[in-house]
Amino acid sequence: MTQNKIVIGLDFGSTSVRVLTMHLRTGKVLNTVEQTYEEGENGVFLSKDNSLLARQKPADYVISMKKALKNTMLQNKALGIEMSSVSGIGVDATGSTPLPVTKEMIPLSDLNEFRNNVNAYAWMWKDHCSHAEAEFITKTSIENRPLYLDKIGGAYSSEWFWAKILKCRNTDKEVFDAAYTWLEFSDFIPAILTGCTDALTVKRNICAAGHKGLYNEEWGGFPDKEFIKKLHPDLLRILQTLPEQTFSVAETCGTLSKKWAEEFGMPEGIPVAMGILDAHAGAIGSGIKDGSLVKIIGTSTCDLVLANLHSGKSDIQGVASVAAESVLPGYYGVEAGQSAVGDILDWFIKVVLKNKQSHRELTQEAEKLKVGSSGLIVLDWNNGNRSILSDPMLSGLLLGQSLQTKDYEIYRALIESTAFGARTIVEDMERQGVVIHEIVNCGGITHKNAFFMQIYADVINKPMKIAASNETVALGAAIIGAHAACIAEGKPISFKTLQDRSCKILEKVYEPIAENVQTYNKLYALYKKLHDAFGIEGTKIEMFGVMKNLIQIKNKTAEK
Amino acid sequence: MTQNKIVIGLDFGSTSVRVLTMHLRTGKVLNTVEQTYEEGENGVFLSKDNSLLARQKPADYVISMKKALKNTMLQNKALGIEMSSVSGIGVDATGSTPLPVTKEMIPLSDLNEFRNNVNAYAWMWKDHCSHAEAEFITKTSIENRPLYLDKIGGAYSSEWFWAKILKCRNTDKEVFDAAYTWLEFSDFIPAILTGCTDALTVKRNICAAGHKGLYNEEWGGFPDKEFIKKLHPDLLRILQTLPEQTFSVAETCGTLSKKWAEEFGMPEGIPVAMGILDAHAGAIGSGIKDGSLVKIIGTSTCDLVLANLHSGKSDIQGVASVAAESVLPGYYGVEAGQSAVGDILDWFIKVVLKNKQSHRELTQEAEKLKVGSSGLIVLDWNNGNRSILSDPMLSGLLLGQSLQTKDYEIYRALIESTAFGARTIVEDMERQGVVIHEIVNCGGITHKNAFFMQIYADVINKPMKIAASNETVALGAAIIGAHAACIAEGKPISFKTLQDRSCKILEKVYEPIAENVQTYNKLYALYKKLHDAFGIEGTKIEMFGVMKNLIQIKNKTAEK
Repeated sequence: MTQNKIVIGLDFGSTSVRVLTMHLRTGKVLNTVEQTYEEGENGVFLSKDNSLLARQKPADYVISMKKALKNTMLQNKALGIEMSSVSGIGVDATGSTPLPVTKEMIPLSDLNEFRNNVNAYAWMWKDHCSHAEAEFITKTSIENRPLYLDKIGGAYSSEWFWAKILKCRNTDKEVFDAAYTWLEFSDFIPAILTGCTDALTVKRNICAAGHKGLYNEEWGGFPDKEFIKKLHPDLLRILQTLPEQTFSVAETCGTLSKKWAEEFGMPEGIPVAMGILDAHAGAIGSGIKDGSLVKIIGTSTCDLVLANLHSGKSDIQGVASVAAESVLPGYYGVEAGQSAVGDILDWFIKVVLKNKQSHRELTQEAEKLKVGSSGLIVLDWNNGNRSILSDPMLSGLLLGQSLQTKDYEIYRALIESTAFGARTIVEDMERQGVVIHEIVNCGGITHKNAFFMQIYADVINKPMKIAASNETVALGAAIIGAHAACIAEGKPISFKTLQDRSCKILEKVYEPIAENVQTYNKLYALYKKLHDAFGIEGTKIEMFGVMKNLIQIKNKTAEK
Repeated sequence: MTQNKIVIGLDFGSTSVRVLTMHLRTGKVLNTVEQTYEEGENGVFLSKDNSLLARQKPADYVISMKKALKNTMLQNKALGIEMSSVSGIGVDATGSTPLPVTKEMIPLSDLNEFRNNVNAYAWMWKDHCSHAEAEFITKTSIENRPLYLDKIGGAYSSEWFWAKILKCRNTDKEVFDAAYTWLEFSDFIPAILTGCTDALTVKRNICAAGHKGLYNEEWGGFPDKEFIKKLHPDLLRILQTLPEQTFSVAETCGTLSKKWAEEFGMPEGIPVAMGILDAHAGAIGSGIKDGSLVKIIGTSTCDLVLANLHSGKSDIQGVASVAAESVLPGYYGVEAGQSAVGDILDWFIKVVLKNKQSHRELTQEAEKLKVGSSGLIVLDWNNGNRSILSDPMLSGLLLGQSLQTKDYEIYRALIESTAFGARTIVEDMERQGVVIHEIVNCGGITHKNAFFMQIYADVINKPMKIAASNETVALGAAIIGAHAACIAEGKPISFKTLQDRSCKILEKVYEPIAENVQTYNKLYALYKKLHDAFGIEGTKIEMFGVMKNLIQIKNKTAEK
């Protein structure tokens, strides 16, 4: 019977939920079902008047999960897999995506009075309405709790928990007052699955709390009352609903409730693991270990590194944040990221070129170019800069265009700019003593686009490995579920063993090409000059040579 | 009989020759014929391997002129206008467009041995092959003849006479050795029409010589032997073929030869005026007078201002050049310019957008935008910067793009950047005491694009007048022909009187809109910051605020 045990990974992304069924003992993926969210535009409520707004309906999460589980049940049945064999569930979700709930765990958006008020919905990570509040929190931290900033790369982000709640307080007091507390999406789902009906008792995951909610054991958990009062006295009421302790994925949130068990034919009482942010699940599913940098490359990019809890690497500047055990127990999770990668390429193709050229067509031309031959350089800041500058109030820059500059030359320069951005993160981590033995990439683009990955290898001058799974995030959630299942069975097993079973690397590793590395080093020096000049306050650098150097590099390339 | 006298203006542009027939006494335009050059691509020989190269065949000029005159003859006949009534001819041509000839005035490209050698053709103004030679001439001037630089805006250009001849010496000695001398296109045509068969006797126009050939009476004409020897000893041979004196359009080159007179039914012996550069003819045809800035706006832009010979304005920094009587007698001609204006818009549409959007479509969307709402700023340097930086080794810059930035927002920012570039010229001239009472614009875009002209009015904060003629250049040539005709008749008449008869201004004047001016002043401050940082050696300015300021301006616009 044990031989047939399976586990379920539930992966709540930005536009859909995936259910991954994994064989417990072998770690083999048996089935994956995806269900897109149905409300709003691709699951997201946007605003015509406010391009910063991005909300989702918690009910949509739950309905989509039910559809996906139903489908999983049917598909598994057809495959001869019984849902009664499910022995553990892992969950990941986007974040910081906080949502307001009543004491009884009802999302405010389920109440008639707030049904059409987007402020009562889940505030997606990519909702930047609270940029002023984020700046205010940063300012308040600088003045009162500078140590907070050491864990979050020097600035609080509009993507995060407190900024969003404060924004709600400042602009929609009715919603704020009606909320008993706010839950991270990654805590809401496990709580629902375990049948929790008291919001005060929800177990919160250390990943979202640590990276986004200013939770840190070094200062006794969530921020103190005095600090929160300085943000807004009304926030004290929310602070009182937050627990003293948070938990890593090595812990369970609780057990599957009777209602959910019956509805999908799963055993009641199986463990539901603590939730985790989706990128962090992706790192687990990519086989992250001490010394690996995992890059989850998509519309934006998330970079995760583990640092041993005894390494003293709890303060790393310029990365998005450092949190104890946010990925795996025993390690700090060091998280950095780039706010736009695939999004920049999509912007160029969809918005500027209006889809008259495709990624494929532009790639075909762009890959024929010699490194440096376009004379172009780009700052990849169309959506601000997450790491290493932590500044959303930055924008894109394209430099070096002549009257002959082609669309595909710009396209290549955009890809290169994201690789330069990635290199700033790697260099900044290494400068601070983080050891990077290998870089493992995951995400759709890493499987589909060899041209893209070769540029990354050449620019960063390190081999680029690719996670074999194209569902590393859902796989990570399933591994977390498996870990919980083994504990419940009384046969605990390490994450490393579970990862070794499931997480493979593609045979194809992109190795740096010496000649390209040489030219990219020159281009990166120019990128870094622009990066520092436009991104670091107080910097005064002579810019005069930048265009001339690009023309020289271009001319030299032409001579070859 | 005098009542029916007519004059002919011959305007040799970059891709075609125009023949304009004007009534002598009334200044009325009677007929215009255009003939495109037939060889190469749109009349221009390009090189696959060298994007800097642009050449034309002198024989193509002559053949095209003959076709155009033939056509003029036929059309005029149909209109009841007799070619026997032609009483004067004016000529303008592009430049600096030097071409090598034998002592007997045969263009080298007419010789069998050089028929297919583009180095023996006319080297078009926009041929930049000689950029290294131009830098060398600048360097040699700085070290030996700094006063030269005061007249040419601080740097010698690859567009100009000596750089091109030196480049030929350095790369094709056979052609160089075969050439007795080099003639400017604007001297070649009048010489041909007057039947000149000795290249040593060709009268050279002060406009091309002064602006492009380093001719200045202040240092005794063309550069001295010592200086030319420093450029290259072999150039001394060419220097010896250059005259001591050059002439303005108030003088004649000679009289129409029997051959040309007979071929087109014109009277033998009528005056052929001295040639002039095309932009300068355009200024005359736009009614330039003391205090007018005439902007000839096309693929690039040429700015011309007159300064009284007694004004002491012979040294003006940062403009392309200052030459005595290069436009009209009694005045310095002060010439500045922008190396790409229409060309930048064409680049975006043709090369980047591959013609999937038209100027009209983008304009329709762009004109709905509020000033500052795109958050974008552009440096208009895709083809380098002619004025006020005199630096071809610069390139374009686009800054401020987000993931929402639209194609038409970029298009508008490109137009605005050319207006900012135009403003730097106006401000730099005014700073040096050049008085600008009015700005008169001419060129196709000024008639066709109200949106473009309004941006110029708002950015420069001065009314924009438009020359009524859409053939101001050919009209200028005809006015020069008329001036010569009147002298030949013994009834001299001033250029001002001739201009008053022919040069009208459109009723529609674009007035600055106060609200737009205010925002553009803010944007211009950012443009200027980028301009100085990237364009002026040794400048160190903090760039950190630029992106933030643009976002602030954008947000403020959104609030309105």
